[in-house]
Amino acid sequence: MQIENPYLMFLGDAADDLAAKVANGVAKWRPDWCLGQLRLPGCNADLGLTDMTLEEAKAAGVKTVIVGVANRGGIIPQSWLSTLEQALVMGFDIASGLHNKLTDIETLSSLAAEHGRKLFDVRHPTETFDVAKGTKRPGKRLLTVGTDCSVGKMFTSLAVEKEMKARGMNCDFRATGQTGIFIAGSGVSVDAVIADFISGATEKLTPANEADHWDVVEGQGSLFHASFAGVSLGLLHGAQADALVMCHEPTRKHMRGLPDFELPDLKRCIEVNEMMGRMVNPACRVIGISVNTSGLPKDRQDDYLEAVEKETGLPAVDAFRQGAGRLVDAL
Amino acid sequence: MQIENPYLMFLGDAADDLAAKVANGVAKWRPDWCLGQLRLPGCNADLGLTDMTLEEAKAAGVKTVIVGVANRGGIIPQSWLSTLEQALVMGFDIASGLHNKLTDIETLSSLAAEHGRKLFDVRHPTETFDVAKGTKRPGKRLLTVGTDCSVGKMFTSLAVEKEMKARGMNCDFRATGQTGIFIAGSGVSVDAVIADFISGATEKLTPANEADHWDVVEGQGSLFHASFAGVSLGLLHGAQADALVMCHEPTRKHMRGLPDFELPDLKRCIEVNEMMGRMVNPACRVIGISVNTSGLPKDRQDDYLEAVEKETGLPAVDAFRQGAGRLVDAL
Repeated sequence: MQIENPYLMFLGDAADDLAAKVANGVAKWRPDWCLGQLRLPGCNADLGLTDMTLEEAKAAGVKTVIVGVANRGGIIPQSWLSTLEQALVMGFDIASGLHNKLTDIETLSSLAAEHGRKLFDVRHPTETFDVAKGTKRPGKRLLTVGTDCSVGKMFTSLAVEKEMKARGMNCDFRATGQTGIFIAGSGVSVDAVIADFISGATEKLTPANEADHWDVVEGQGSLFHASFAGVSLGLLHGAQADALVMCHEPTRKHMRGLPDFELPDLKRCIEVNEMMGRMVNPACRVIGISVNTSGLPKDRQDDYLEAVEKETGLPAVDAFRQGAGRLVDAL
Repeated sequence: MQIENPYLMFLGDAADDLAAKVANGVAKWRPDWCLGQLRLPGCNADLGLTDMTLEEAKAAGVKTVIVGVANRGGIIPQSWLSTLEQALVMGFDIASGLHNKLTDIETLSSLAAEHGRKLFDVRHPTETFDVAKGTKRPGKRLLTVGTDCSVGKMFTSLAVEKEMKARGMNCDFRATGQTGIFIAGSGVSVDAVIADFISGATEKLTPANEADHWDVVEGQGSLFHASFAGVSLGLLHGAQADALVMCHEPTRKHMRGLPDFELPDLKRCIEVNEMMGRMVNPACRVIGISVNTSGLPKDRQDDYLEAVEKETGLPAVDAFRQGAGRLVDAL
């Protein structure tokens, strides 16, 4: 899978900016690829990009229309459909992060075939994978892990990649979720592969590489999350990570979606991730902590980071405010 | 999914008994359900059951034809197909453990629809699952775990179930792999569900139950296996196990399929399984060890079990030779 850029961001009739969260992430991290946005009547989201018609997008050189919005009730309304059909006729590919597959919609499938265009349903891997081999492969890998789901693993990975690129390091961001895949132009939604192949898909995503090359791998879930720990462990083993960055959100009252579960202690979470990671790579270690401090009072944010550093003996940064410089220094 | 018994075991033209391994397991554990076997010309496997034609099976009251053989090269030969088609016409359901789906074969699908029969592809779950909730539910659960893949987890689970039934305990064997599913008549191939739902599928398989009820859950893989640890952890969390039985095969030179990986130390494997299990159930503990000693010299088998008991402080049995009595005692 390789999604061609530049992109036109399709926002449909998104109720608010939250409904366009995926599109927002793509526009933030790949501003050069996102040439414009297409909003239908009733759309309340705004990425701050130039509004474009399909014709204008064509003239601007757009290759792919990105459907980076949540649809209401899982239904793709007729108003979206006629725009997407027209996009295929005009020669765009379409990449979607919807749960419902574009390829399941008869008119889109047949128009894509007729016009030689591609439909990417990035939540639904179509590749086949081998079972993981576990063999040590050249190149280095950094994986973001977390105390919980949705604690900034993608953001941190991208901040690390940005810092590495700025330093001229040989690296690639490797995406494992829908927003990340639009940002990378490729990747695998690891939580959507068949369970037997979680680690195998991750091995394929992060193949043998030059000795100085870093894969910066987007993590998913948490080893401590009762719903998703299997995905997190499969990813940790498949990535054969040399370096882990522990991501954390200090204001969470309980594990996301699990009111009965407290967040794990940070030091214990580090120990368990290192222990499980060392099963496949004895060199695996947590090299730093990435904390989303935005939920803390402004005057307590830096104190919190300092306390985490003291507790763990590792650099702790808020990657949003401070970038990932100190994390890359720690490698 | 509920596969109706009694069964006719279809062996096709299996090259040898190994190709009929699944059917063998079913015949061993559910002799009362397996009324006969159907062998085509060239079949070299033999379950020791009465050879039956479809007509004889019908007369004997068989409900389902079980395809418990490996097919060569993934192809279902014409000779198998005509027998299976005839079975549907005669009113049997068919349940298959093949990688290739029966439901993908046009003639079988349409005959099943026409005659109101069911096709079960037990390697390929068709149910939908929710994401795991992690909520504590009534009833008790025992899960078999392992130092490696294929170290007797299904066998041990069935031996425990047999012992519990013999003692009049309230219990059910819960199958997570193809052979187990034929033996239970229902279950979920957890390694074939979408990664996000490993734990959710396991929760559905082992639902809330009476306070004295035991689910005896068939484990898969090993937390230490670089290919499949994600499945094992998802299963451990979803089962919310109260009791674990650690299964082990002492003559393995390396982890199955992974020549670079040594088997984990038994005590460490116990510790890690308990630690990860306690994330969702603080009462989780390993209550005993099940060792397949058949690869050891006869005069060393009991010494080995004794040494394991001394090392771990837990009862260690060879469930094949000795049954699971001491494991059930330990609950």
